[in-house]
Amino acid sequence: MEILQVESTLVCTRRIEGLKQAKLLVLKNTKGKRVVAIDQVGANAGNFVFVVSGSAARHGADDYYILTDLTVAGIIDHWQA
Amino acid sequence: MEILQVESTLVCTRRIEGLKQAKLLVLKNTKGKRVVAIDQVGANAGNFVFVVSGSAARHGADDYYILTDLTVAGIIDHWQA
Amino acid sequence: MEILQVESTLVCTRRIEGLKQAKLLVLKNTKGKRVVAIDQVGANAGNFVFVVSGSAARHGADDYYILTDLTVAGIIDHWQA
Amino acid sequence: MEILQVESTLVCTRRIEGLKQAKLLVLKNTKGKRVVAIDQVGANAGNFVFVVSGSAARHGADDYYILTDLTVAGIIDHWQA
Amino acid sequence: MEILQVESTLVCTRRIEGLKQAKLLVLKNTKGKRVVAIDQVGANAGNFVFVVSGSAARHGADDYYILTDLTVAGIIDHWQA
Repeated sequence: MEILQVESTLVCTRRIEGLKQAKLLVLKNTKGKRVVAIDQVGANAGNFVFVVSGSAARHGADDYYILTDLTVAGIIDHWQA
Repeated sequence: MEILQVESTLVCTRRIEGLKQAKLLVLKNTKGKRVVAIDQVGANAGNFVFVVSGSAARHGADDYYILTDLTVAGIIDHWQA
Repeated sequence: MEILQVESTLVCTRRIEGLKQAKLLVLKNTKGKRVVAIDQVGANAGNFVFVVSGSAARHGADDYYILTDLTVAGIIDHWQA
Repeated sequence: MEILQVESTLVCTRRIEGLKQAKLLVLKNTKGKRVVAIDQVGANAGNFVFVVSGSAARHGADDYYILTDLTVAGIIDHWQA
Repeated sequence: MEILQVESTLVCTRRIEGLKQAKLLVLKNTKGKRVVAIDQVGANAGNFVFVVSGSAARHGADDYYILTDLTVAGIIDHWQA
């Protein structure tokens, strides 16, 4: 599971049905690369989180029918980048 | 889910049956690397999109029997590269 | 789906049973890295192709029981590297 | 399966239910990149381990319903980085 | 399927049950990065092999219940790095 930092929420009005109304976050890694993930644990900008990928990401989104490949798995209590 | 920019549609007459007549896009990342994805949301050249990979890509293509590993999940409303 | 160029066929007499007699190609990316894929569409040396990975690769190999993680999905009609 | 070195345990009180109370480790690769994995074999800080990813990671976590994509598969007896 | 060179066998007495007594190899890529894979075809140190990843790796290990994400798929007859 990768460690990423939350940057912002993502606004996306035109999306596939499979994403439903899931909350989307923009996250970045230590090299500045950004990716998009589903969040169900309430992460905020600045938080360091770790994310789960693959089919586990869909189970982690509470609803297996949400078509994601990346979901926030937990917020890290203390982290130094 | 990775963030990519749409470059063009892809012309490909000789393909495996499993791709059917799906619309294919060439997308590029911030380093200029190009990949091919299925598009069902109507993305245009220049749009920034995020894509879903793995088995979710097939569900996202509306038809699970389309054999893709990458599908456009949404068009980002505002994005600065 | 990644974009790769066909380099040659691969000779491999000692292989797992799960690969059966499938035709194997050596492909390279823009950085010169080489990988091996199954081909069912008849790609030739020099062709630019895009490949499908994961479980879709097995479905794309016509026979789900061929144990590959990479299969040529289509030959690109026009491509400039 | 990748080879990584154990750095520390990870404290994470806010997590998706699917992770349950599983023990989490922070591991780093030879380039210093850190990832998070489930551990069931009792690895300690400093150990070199190899990890299994994908759906096998969930089976490796003893409980298929633990939503991980990375699990320690074994501790390497002798290793020089 | 990636192309790797066999370096040595791996000694690992403490492992998850899911790996059973499978033979483990250390392989390295052209950049010197090492990974661990299951071998059922009898590859020796110095051989160039290609490996299959994901769920196909488990089918390739003869026993679907061996929890690997990487298995040697074949030994390449002639190869120049």
